[in-house]
Amino acid sequence: MRLRSLFSMLLLALILAAPAFGESAEVVDCLSCHEKQTPGSVLQWRQSAHEAAGVGCGDCHGADHQSIDAGEAYVDMEVCGQCHAGALERHKESRHGMGLHSGWGCTRNLTGRDPRECAFCHEEDSAAPLSTVECGRFLKQSFEMGQAGCNRCHQVERSCAACHTNHGTDLAIVRDPAVCATCHMGPDHPQWEAWSTSKHGTLNKSTGIGPTCQDCHMSGGDHNVSAGVAYPSSGLRYDEAETQKRRDAMLDLCAGCHGRNFATRELLNTDTIREQSTALVEQAAEIIRELADERLLAPMPADRPGHPLRGQELVLDQQILFEDVSHIERLYFKMKKYDLAKTLVGGYHQNPDYTHWYGNAELKMDLVDIKSEALRLRRLSALEKGTVRTEPKPDPTQDLERELQRLKSRFERGALDEEAYREQKTKLLEALK
Amino acid sequence: MRLRSLFSMLLLALILAAPAFGESAEVVDCLSCHEKQTPGSVLQWRQSAHEAAGVGCGDCHGADHQSIDAGEAYVDMEVCGQCHAGALERHKESRHGMGLHSGWGCTRNLTGRDPRECAFCHEEDSAAPLSTVECGRFLKQSFEMGQAGCNRCHQVERSCAACHTNHGTDLAIVRDPAVCATCHMGPDHPQWEAWSTSKHGTLNKSTGIGPTCQDCHMSGGDHNVSAGVAYPSSGLRYDEAETQKRRDAMLDLCAGCHGRNFATRELLNTDTIREQSTALVEQAAEIIRELADERLLAPMPADRPGHPLRGQELVLDQQILFEDVSHIERLYFKMKKYDLAKTLVGGYHQNPDYTHWYGNAELKMDLVDIKSEALRLRRLSALEKGTVRTEPKPDPTQDLERELQRLKSRFERGALDEEAYREQKTKLLEALK
Amino acid sequence: MRLRSLFSMLLLALILAAPAFGESAEVVDCLSCHEKQTPGSVLQWRQSAHEAAGVGCGDCHGADHQSIDAGEAYVDMEVCGQCHAGALERHKESRHGMGLHSGWGCTRNLTGRDPRECAFCHEEDSAAPLSTVECGRFLKQSFEMGQAGCNRCHQVERSCAACHTNHGTDLAIVRDPAVCATCHMGPDHPQWEAWSTSKHGTLNKSTGIGPTCQDCHMSGGDHNVSAGVAYPSSGLRYDEAETQKRRDAMLDLCAGCHGRNFATRELLNTDTIREQSTALVEQAAEIIRELADERLLAPMPADRPGHPLRGQELVLDQQILFEDVSHIERLYFKMKKYDLAKTLVGGYHQNPDYTHWYGNAELKMDLVDIKSEALRLRRLSALEKGTVRTEPKPDPTQDLERELQRLKSRFERGALDEEAYREQKTKLLEALK
Repeated sequence: MRLRSLFSMLLLALILAAPAFGESAEVVDCLSCHEKQTPGSVLQWRQSAHEAAGVGCGDCHGADHQSIDAGEAYVDMEVCGQCHAGALERHKESRHGMGLHSGWGCTRNLTGRDPRECAFCHEEDSAAPLSTVECGRFLKQSFEMGQAGCNRCHQVERSCAACHTNHGTDLAIVRDPAVCATCHMGPDHPQWEAWSTSKHGTLNKSTGIGPTCQDCHMSGGDHNVSAGVAYPSSGLRYDEAETQKRRDAMLDLCAGCHGRNFATRELLNTDTIREQSTALVEQAAEIIRELADERLLAPMPADRPGHPLRGQELVLDQQILFEDVSHIERLYFKMKKYDLAKTLVGGYHQNPDYTHWYGNAELKMDLVDIKSEALRLRRLSALEKGTVRTEPKPDPTQDLERELQRLKSRFERGALDEEAYREQKTKLLEALK
Repeated sequence: MRLRSLFSMLLLALILAAPAFGESAEVVDCLSCHEKQTPGSVLQWRQSAHEAAGVGCGDCHGADHQSIDAGEAYVDMEVCGQCHAGALERHKESRHGMGLHSGWGCTRNLTGRDPRECAFCHEEDSAAPLSTVECGRFLKQSFEMGQAGCNRCHQVERSCAACHTNHGTDLAIVRDPAVCATCHMGPDHPQWEAWSTSKHGTLNKSTGIGPTCQDCHMSGGDHNVSAGVAYPSSGLRYDEAETQKRRDAMLDLCAGCHGRNFATRELLNTDTIREQSTALVEQAAEIIRELADERLLAPMPADRPGHPLRGQELVLDQQILFEDVSHIERLYFKMKKYDLAKTLVGGYHQNPDYTHWYGNAELKMDLVDIKSEALRLRRLSALEKGTVRTEPKPDPTQDLERELQRLKSRFERGALDEEAYREQKTKLLEALK
Repeated sequence: MRLRSLFSMLLLALILAAPAFGESAEVVDCLSCHEKQTPGSVLQWRQSAHEAAGVGCGDCHGADHQSIDAGEAYVDMEVCGQCHAGALERHKESRHGMGLHSGWGCTRNLTGRDPRECAFCHEEDSAAPLSTVECGRFLKQSFEMGQAGCNRCHQVERSCAACHTNHGTDLAIVRDPAVCATCHMGPDHPQWEAWSTSKHGTLNKSTGIGPTCQDCHMSGGDHNVSAGVAYPSSGLRYDEAETQKRRDAMLDLCAGCHGRNFATRELLNTDTIREQSTALVEQAAEIIRELADERLLAPMPADRPGHPLRGQELVLDQQILFEDVSHIERLYFKMKKYDLAKTLVGGYHQNPDYTHWYGNAELKMDLVDIKSEALRLRRLSALEKGTVRTEPKPDPTQDLERELQRLKSRFERGALDEEAYREQKTKLLEALK
């Protein structure tokens, strides 16, 4: 805390001193080349509060040009935290600052990785992992997909620039809900879409009175974005006291516009939907486990590339993969990672279409497909094992009866006109003779 | 009509009188608690035209605090209609005001329902339903999903606040197309999405000249949102005269910007697409009916939880469910409720991507999947019944010929290099000897 | 070039002359009727730069009212090009101006086509096609779907109004990224969606500093929208020099804001993802070709309506259809036309959700489904051919062992309580005796 005061004073001093002194020799040195090499970055810095406060290139990037060139002088959150200690502290307490915990896989045995990735899992110069939570899905990606996909969002765990941009400091950027959209969208967690078309989002668009992402999740600029989120996203739960503390923090915000009782009922309603929807997912998981017991998955885990973390095991928990699995597990992946998330994100953001059509209805349709595939696999297997008692040579009279019934049913619903009905009926009866 | 004039005069009187008298004793009484209990609601009212016109808490909520607390003093459209009679009348003539007709299920035999729901189906203190149209899909939902899903949108059938919000009266809210988005979006009727990326929507965004939802569907503030909609959404049809009356009303609006001939051609084009696309859906329904006749649905309706309204019957009309059905019926649900809707909504809003890719192309792909599943079910059943004549012990020479052909075909498309081709060919020929 | 100067001078002359002369007799003649018939169009023209410059109705529509009525006096790009020669020239060099090449099918043998379509494929009064590239998917559409779907976007190949609107000339329309959305969206190429939620799009929304579509693809108003696009969308490639020329043109634009090295790395990263993702698609194609060799597609190409251009052939290249194919080919269509496109569009626009979840992850899930369907088709066929050696009458002891193992496994994961486990175990053992 004292350190922070020190930084604040230092910052104030810099702000006051900078305009008087103009650009320092060091900054001028960088600019002489970079105004030609990277004019955009220089311009963004020139228009920033950093320039006004005399914070120059070297203050963030360091003075060792060789290490900058090698990508080793990464300007991570600790660099920003030298001045912005309060924000950093709260960031670290939130899911945004959880590092490895929220998805980074252990990359040490893989080739072609960006060396900066080490810092996501290890203290400097240490082989000991910072966490035991690793991500099987990430480990299946190519280096390039890891960069363009997973890491593009998960950089928030180390980088303030993920939201604030690299050289600008315009707070309009981070106060607009759009800044959240790039990551908080898509099939796995459509917060952006759910908010945009919720009452909150549409009122924000029409009149500005609907709350933004930041109004509820970063109230007063608090960098702990998880403060009022009562459930961790992993399917785990906080203990009762922690859950209530977080719920109360959110309700305090709701009460700014809504009656507290109304808001409480709303959130409890989605809590119940969470339980109901999770039960649907669990029902599907049990169907798959039973198929695995009967050795009916096609292919079985033993006959396909192993899971990066768990080998030839059937994985249906948070580490479930979407590749190198069987069709029924792929359906389950959609159910667990996409449709359950849409149901809950839709519910907590009061978006009826996300919670019902994109979420809960899809969960139920997936379950139809999963049950259907299970039945199909069992029928095929029974045929292959010869355990289906093939029916005795059919009795032609019974067959005829069934055919006549079909004909009548088609006629009755108008799929057959009277003439065709009679003709085909006669034909059937004659065939018997 | 006379009543309406009376209300208008009364309103005018209130507007003129209110500022002079200040807040009535009654309002002050509510505010003394509610400024602390529900400050947001109070603030919204303070900034509203209602406050300016002297319309206080009790005018809408009544004076019986006990019944308000019990949720029995619901401020429904009839309360608003005491002053806004004209809007209410037109609202009731539109699909927005159709109540039970557009989806509410009969809830009387279910437990845990919100008592206010009774009013959706019954006159006060009467057990007689207001309508015979009930919704099987709604009846399958849990209470919580019914609230967060179905009822969140279908409240428009009873509540002006669905669009206008509870305590605000800012017309900017209801004149922005965003107000429609929360309900008129999603897989079952993506009007919001189709308009947003249509020429109308994009011109509205860039220059304000493209028409909004309200410009075409609530012209001049008319609360009959169905006035120019020529087809009811249920697949039914109005009689010819009514259809033409509605079409003409819409064309009058189109003609504000477009040549009438052009607009007429455009709408007729989608009318034809409606017929073509409906025929694709009917083709799928017939495939499923035939499977049911042959007792090949897996599971058959008799072997699964009954339909809330129709029991163990096969249901393929507007009452089709998306849960507790077979895989092929689930595919049909997507076709009928999602893809047909996208085709038509896309067509009437001149959005090529919705009418073609999200709509018609999906219909055709669903049909591929439905035919494929029908074939699969027939093959499995034939195998189980032993009616597949298993081929006679294969002739090794014929087999060889087929294998050689496959090898050649792989070689010719480059999936096999010349050496491998020769090697495998030699091997095959030797195996024969 | 000289011609262009001439036009420019002519235009200048018109601009200078027009206000002095007022409306010409010819224009007045049109307006006398059209102010009543098509007031919107007249109003748009009145507010346009064309009116100010004295460009009247006849200058674009001609004077032959009969041919206008018959739809034969189509105002295509050549009409606009009389004055806007530079824009037209660049338009024709881009994919926007490629006409038939980018998708128009040969319509000469089909009935009910719009006669104006001829011009898309043929020089005036000539039967010789302008190109050999034709579109099988377009040829499968009804006339109405062709109009409301394909042609709504592909009119850009002949019509400036596709972007500029018919009678307005407001540049605000064509400088807003929304103008691109109507066509560049949807499952087959979601550039609009990918940009909107990318860093570029969200920064554009919050502060205006993020670049628009036009900033990168129509820099300085250049009408060659393909200038910096290094790969044609057809899966073909430019030669190395052309590829590099185009890439360099784009990097020059990136360098306005980013370090050139960073931008180069970014684009190369997606180039590699292109190769990886294309390999997944090719893996799927090979699975389908092998099934076709084994005559296992259901139905086989010989047993379904022929491809409009290739007859009873298996088509897996750019001409692939989404209708009248087998289920596995439908899955492949999604993979090739939707998910590969999303991966690449997401990658080049730096949108992690599109490149990963909507793109690459879907590709991998499709591959799971395709492999699963291939296995299913093989199992069914083997059963039908009787080539599955049905297992010998099962040994009851072995069966028992398997059942006991299943029971234990269910007990261990908690799906069975201890009592039920013991009970069922005892039952099994007794059944053996």
